[in-house]
Formats: sequence, structure tokens, C-alpha cells
Amino acid sequence: MPAWQDYLKDRRSQYLEELLDFLRIPSISSLPEYADDVKRAGEWVAARLETASFEGVRVLPTGGHPVVYGEWLHTPGKPTIMIYGHFDTQPVDPIEQWTHPPFEPIVRDDRVYARGASDDKGNMLTAILATEAMLKCHGTLPVNLKFFFEGQEEIGSPQLSEFIASNKDLLACDLVLSADGGQWEADQPALHIGLRGLCSLQLDVRGADHDVHSGTYGGTFQNPIHALAHLIDSMHSPEGKVLVEGFYDTVRSLSDTERAQIADIPYNESDYMAKLGVTELFGEPGHTTYQRAWTRPTLEVNGIWGGFQDEGIKTVIPSQAHAKISCRLVPDQHPEPIIELIRSHVEKHTPPGVTVKASPIPSKAEPYLIPYDHPGNQAARAVHKSLFSKEPYYTRMGGSIPVCNIMLKHLGAYTVNFAFGLNDENAHAPDEFFRLTSFELGQKAYGMILEQLSCLEIQSNGKPS
Amino acid sequence: MPAWQDYLKDRRSQYLEELLDFLRIPSISSLPEYADDVKRAGEWVAARLETASFEGVRVLPTGGHPVVYGEWLHTPGKPTIMIYGHFDTQPVDPIEQWTHPPFEPIVRDDRVYARGASDDKGNMLTAILATEAMLKCHGTLPVNLKFFFEGQEEIGSPQLSEFIASNKDLLACDLVLSADGGQWEADQPALHIGLRGLCSLQLDVRGADHDVHSGTYGGTFQNPIHALAHLIDSMHSPEGKVLVEGFYDTVRSLSDTERAQIADIPYNESDYMAKLGVTELFGEPGHTTYQRAWTRPTLEVNGIWGGFQDEGIKTVIPSQAHAKISCRLVPDQHPEPIIELIRSHVEKHTPPGVTVKASPIPSKAEPYLIPYDHPGNQAARAVHKSLFSKEPYYTRMGGSIPVCNIMLKHLGAYTVNFAFGLNDENAHAPDEFFRLTSFELGQKAYGMILEQLSCLEIQSNGKPS
Repeated sequence: MPAWQDYLKDRRSQYLEELLDFLRIPSISSLPEYADDVKRAGEWVAARLETASFEGVRVLPTGGHPVVYGEWLHTPGKPTIMIYGHFDTQPVDPIEQWTHPPFEPIVRDDRVYARGASDDKGNMLTAILATEAMLKCHGTLPVNLKFFFEGQEEIGSPQLSEFIASNKDLLACDLVLSADGGQWEADQPALHIGLRGLCSLQLDVRGADHDVHSGTYGGTFQNPIHALAHLIDSMHSPEGKVLVEGFYDTVRSLSDTERAQIADIPYNESDYMAKLGVTELFGEPGHTTYQRAWTRPTLEVNGIWGGFQDEGIKTVIPSQAHAKISCRLVPDQHPEPIIELIRSHVEKHTPPGVTVKASPIPSKAEPYLIPYDHPGNQAARAVHKSLFSKEPYYTRMGGSIPVCNIMLKHLGAYTVNFAFGLNDENAHAPDEFFRLTSFELGQKAYGMILEQLSCLEIQSNGKPS
Repeated sequence: MPAWQDYLKDRRSQYLEELLDFLRIPSISSLPEYADDVKRAGEWVAARLETASFEGVRVLPTGGHPVVYGEWLHTPGKPTIMIYGHFDTQPVDPIEQWTHPPFEPIVRDDRVYARGASDDKGNMLTAILATEAMLKCHGTLPVNLKFFFEGQEEIGSPQLSEFIASNKDLLACDLVLSADGGQWEADQPALHIGLRGLCSLQLDVRGADHDVHSGTYGGTFQNPIHALAHLIDSMHSPEGKVLVEGFYDTVRSLSDTERAQIADIPYNESDYMAKLGVTELFGEPGHTTYQRAWTRPTLEVNGIWGGFQDEGIKTVIPSQAHAKISCRLVPDQHPEPIIELIRSHVEKHTPPGVTVKASPIPSKAEPYLIPYDHPGNQAARAVHKSLFSKEPYYTRMGGSIPVCNIMLKHLGAYTVNFAFGLNDENAHAPDEFFRLTSFELGQKAYGMILEQLSCLEIQSNGKPS
């Protein structure tokens, strides 16, 4: 066993105490009244990086919550790896469902219970501790290392893209390891190789210039709710295919390998339905459930409203009706062209007697896909095989996390997901927890992957070969 | 000129003062804090009937706001006419749009401005004053007369049906004259011969048992908003015909005479569109605008809601979506069977992956139609011709007023609409007013129609022949 692993073992209780310390800071990024706590969490991280002997450590303003940077760049000729994570947390609502105060962490049954334990304080700390151990034991690291931690991941990283674009030199690297995420199961590793993108828009349908009595005038002019229902229904086939013209034109088909990788992942339909509380699944024909959730684009109405919503009835034909629509995108779709296709569809299908405004909503993300056999993934796979004695699954996530694409766009560096949380740890829910076994596994894994990445071949364009 | 008309003329200023007095009582039936004022308005009416020499005057409880009854039954062999009106008013919102306090009536440009001036205090008072004049001048009336005024018309007369059913003997009559309504234009009389009925229901669509992240699971199960949009869109053809199976089966076709009567009414499409603030009309093909508004049934979604409705986007697939639906009904449709047809339609068209509950909402009304040549209408027509030197239009109302059908059902008596408000008098809106010319015309008209009705032939079954 390398000395750094012994070093980690010797400090188990100290490192756990430090995690509890970190978790005591209520760094909720979505609530303005916790802004100082988010900043305090950033300062805690910066101090911890200093203690670990990292250099150039600084807390930097972004216009929103701050980011924290630190580096160690003393292995010329070796690749430069950036480790990413976030020190902000979700809010705690519904607080009454917690069995203990969310920012007073407790250890029970080898689990640390607190908001942010798994997402992402526990995970991001593993990387700091692993590299501290290596530096303290060996005085060096197998790679050049940069840390980049943000304080607003839970609110969609609004200033991240601009910050990274403005700090390309500081953040230049060959590969990003994201300590935000997790594994498939306690005994089954996974490589998350894809994320869906996102675009969204609002439909505002207008009919009469005021709410009209449905008795006096009903039957003589268009009801904007009917028009909106028609537009929404026109966007899907009865089987669940999106009917917006051109919607699938740029969707990249799965290769046989990709298909096989997804088919290799165990799937239990009853379990899947039970998680949703449905008795039937539904969606685009010709694709498996995982394919639909991870590799196919969607168009979903997230909200709809118009007219009377209280008890009883008010016989009004409202002057307006509205809907929020968002699409999950997959390679090679892009937010702007998809928005345009939807706007054309709306224009083409608007019924007589109403006007419809289709306005893009700023929230958007490009889809992300790292080649499953990318050298960064090969390194992660080697670590997984060593730690779990198993091949990882090649999974994707149906959601959209902007950071991976921002790094790729501005730094030319792919992100490898490398974190050890598990799905059952109540991220975003009451009684969030993190397993001590995952906390220790993560530390070991981070040391091991940096050793693996020491041999990463760098192309002249800065990208891994 | 008969003596009673001179009597009315002599008391113009006194009667106007009495109207202003009546209008000072803020008898808003929808607001519980005005319940005492509604009662006070009823007591004012009862006292006024006493003054006018009516007998058996009483304020009667209904379980909601009270009703007022009074009678004069001293012409055996002559028909018994019941005069209906209401002493409650609409609320005053938006109060800031009134140019003077709504319950401090003022007279300006020969108009009385106050809430309730036209709807219905001014109109109902004309009937009391006319009959007072006749009684005072002649010591008798041309018919047996009952007054029946209610205090909750503006909230849909919730206890009216039960009250009338429980007081059939007290209220027995041959014909009802309703002093609630109005004429077509200042120089154009109209007979409102029909009202549409009403039924309503709520659709509750349920998908997953909780709101689900549209990234993680989107594309794998049914979105209840999509399902609801599909159901709503399935209920109309693109041209505006209701597609609920059987919906039109019991709709009585218009006779050639009825068609001609409606065609005789001037129609200006630009004016009609301007009132709605639309640039295009829309509705069931094959029917004119007035036909659609008055003689054709409708199915309208009055409200819809589900999921996220705030600023920006929340990428959620909501667990529920809801809609309120109401139908306007025409002879010979009835609320219950139409509700059943819609429920069958919903069952048949529910997409996979959701459950839908279709729950009737209690608010309902039967459609009402009095034969245009009913003896009561003939009497009203004779008065119109005499007062306006014009034939009345035979119009209908697209809305639903329960009282006409309640009287027909429980008392076997048709209701003739006989009131002198005009469309521009801001009923239900700020700055409601009533023309002094209408106030005086109404008094004269009520005297004249009672003279006309003196000769009404009564069938043995209590109905006019």
C-alpha cells in the first residue's frame, strides 16, 4: 500500500471531524439570506487547500456566489488536471421531514447525515484529502493539479460560463475530474458519459382583450385555452414522438457499442415504475426506457395556466392562457435551433382567432457527451476495476449540468465524472447522508486516478489524444 | 291618459327620491359583511309594498339572503301575475374606477348613477310604483298580483329552487313578469325568449405520484399536462364543433320563423368584434354569430392549471393537471346527460399512463325557452308596439339565469322578460347607471302590461292557453 494511503487511514477520525465542520456551514445558494454562509463555505475550502499545501489559493468573485481556486504545478511535462466540485447546497424544505437539524451533522450507522453531505461537500472533500496525503507523504503529485470549486451549482451556475471564459489562462487544463455525482450502486461502478442539454420557452396565447362571460359571447370567438391545448397536443404523436418538424434531424444515432453498453445495464421495469408511482411507462416508440431517458430528446410542458382555478366554477372565457415548455437535448442538437423549430411549429399550428407569443427562457444547456473510450474514462475505468473488481457501466444522465460543456467550450477539456455518492443518499431531499465507506473510497480513488492520469498523453492542441 | 299615469307623473320627484333612498343600501349579496344590508334592502322593499297598499307583505327566510313577498288578489276570474326582481347588487370592484361612491347615488344628465341602479333596483321599483298608482287611483288592479323579490340573484340564487318548491301555494300564478333585464336599444324593444342552460365539471389528471425531474425521467412516462391538452383538444373540431359524441343529439333545430326572427336583428360584425377586442370571430360552422351565441350549445374550458407557473423555468413533470369545463345548453339538452356524455368522452380519449377524474360541479341550469307567441309575450309585444311604435326583436340570452326554469318547473308558469334597462348601463361594472327615461317608461309599461294581461286566457291546468 502506498504511503499516502496509510496517511489517509491514520487520519480517518480527523478527516471525518473536518467534514462535519464543513457541513455545519448552511451554504444554501438559492436563498439570499444565506449568501454570507456560501462565502464562508468558500473561505473554509480555501483555508483547507492552504493547509493541504496548495498554492495560489484564492476566493474569487463571480458577480454571484464566489469560486475557490488553488493549484500545484510542479511536474512539468505531466498533464494538468482540474478537479471540480461545489460547496453550496440545496435548501432544506420540507424541513419538517428531517429527523434532525440539516446543518447539525450526525454520524449514525456509518453514515453522515446533513444537507450537502453527499451533494457535494463529502465528495469534493475526498479529492482535497487524497491530494494532501500524496503531497505530505511524497512531496509531489503525479500530475499538475488545479482545484476549481464553485458556490452556485445548485442554482444552475449562472455566472460560471462568463467566469471561465474570462479566466482561461488561470483554468487551462488537459482534463477535468468532476467530484459532483456518484456511482451506480455500492458494489457497481459507473462512468456517466453523457448529459442531456436543455432549452425552454414560454407560450402566451391571447384571445379577447378581457375575460369574457361565457354565456353572453361563448361560441362566437376562440378560447385561448382551447388554442393552447391544440398547440400542445400538436407537439406529440399519440405514441409520444415529438412532432415538431425537424426536431430529430440532428440527433446522432447510437452506435452498436453504445446500444450494447446501455443494454448491459440491468433494468427492472417494476422498480422503475415504482420510483415514479405509475402503473405504465410511456414514450417515444422504438427505444428502451434507458435510451429514452438518456439518449433521446424530449419536449415537456412543465406548467400551464389560464382562467379560473378556484373552487366551483366561474363561467369565463379568459383572455389569456400560458404554458412553460422545456426540451431535453441530445447530441447534436443545440438550444437555439430547437427553439426556432418550436416557434415555427407554433406559428404553423396556431388556430384562428388568437395570437401566440413564443418567448425563449434564458435557462439552457448544450448536451454533453464524452467518448466512452476517452483516455480520461480509461483512467477512471482502471481505478473502478481495481476498487470494485468490476467493469463500470457506461451510463448517461437525463438531466442537464452546464459545467461539463462550459469546460469543453472554453478550456477545450473534457470532464470525467468521478464521484462516489449513491442514488439513495437523498440529495435534494430530507435526511441527506453520505456513507463513510464512500468518503474513504473516494479519497483512495482520487489518489489512484491521479496516478493513472500521470501517463495521459497530451496532444499539441491541448486535448488528450 | 288613464288617471294612474297622471298619478305617476305627479310623483316623479318623490319616486326619484325613493329610488335614491333604495340605492343607498349597499346590498351586496356576495360579501358576507353586507348580509345585514341585503336584509335591510329587503325590509325597505317590504315597507314600500305596504305603503303601496299591498297585502300579506312579508320578509321570508330562505337559508341564504331573504325574499320579500306581497300580494293583491281581489279580481276573481282574472289571471294571477307574479312580478319578479331582486334587491341585491353586484360588488363594486374595481372601486377605483368609479367616478363617485357607488352607494351615494347622484343624478347627472338625466341618469341615476349608483351600484344596482339598473340591475335591478331601478327596474324592480318601476313595477311597484306602477301598481301603487293603479291601486291608489282606481282602488283595484286589472289582474291578481303577487310580488316576489329575492336577495341573492347576483350569487346564482342558490336557495331559490328549494324555497319556491316549498312555497308552491303561496307563489302559485299564471305568468311571471321578470323586472330583471332590459331592452335592445333606447328606441328598439326586444323580447328575450330564451336563456341557455349550464353544466360544469372539473377534470383532474394524475400521472406520477409526485412531481418528477424532467431530466432524470423525462421521456419515459406520461406527462399529465400533455394528457389534459389531448383531452381538451379532442373535444372540438378545428372548426369549432363540439366533438363529444351525442352532444348535439337532443338540440332542437330552429324553425324557419325563429331563424327569420334572429336574422331580422341588425348585426354589425366590426362592432361585435370590437366589444370582445378580437380581430376574428370563431365558432361552430353553419350558424350565424347570434345563432351561435344564443341557440347553439358550447363547451368551454374556463380554467386550466398544473405544474410550474412562476418566472423562469422549473424543469418538472408535474404529478397533476386540472381543468374546469362548462357547457352552455339549449333546448332540449339537460345538464346531467351532457355531463355523462363528457365523462364517456374523457374515458374514451384518455391517453395511456394517466388517470382522469371527471367530477360534476354543482352549478347548473336547464335551458329556458318561452314560445315567442306565448300570450304573455303577445301582451308584452302589444305594450312595446304602443310605447316604441316598433315591433320588438325576438332575442335570446346566451347566459343562464336559473329563476325562469325554476318558476316553470315548480309553478308551471312561464316568465316574460319585461324590464327597461339598456346594455350600456354598466351593470356589474363601475359607474352603473339607470336612465330616468327608462325609470318612467318602465312604470308606464308595467301599468300597461297588467291591463293587457287582464284578458289572458287561463287553461284548466293553470297554464296560459
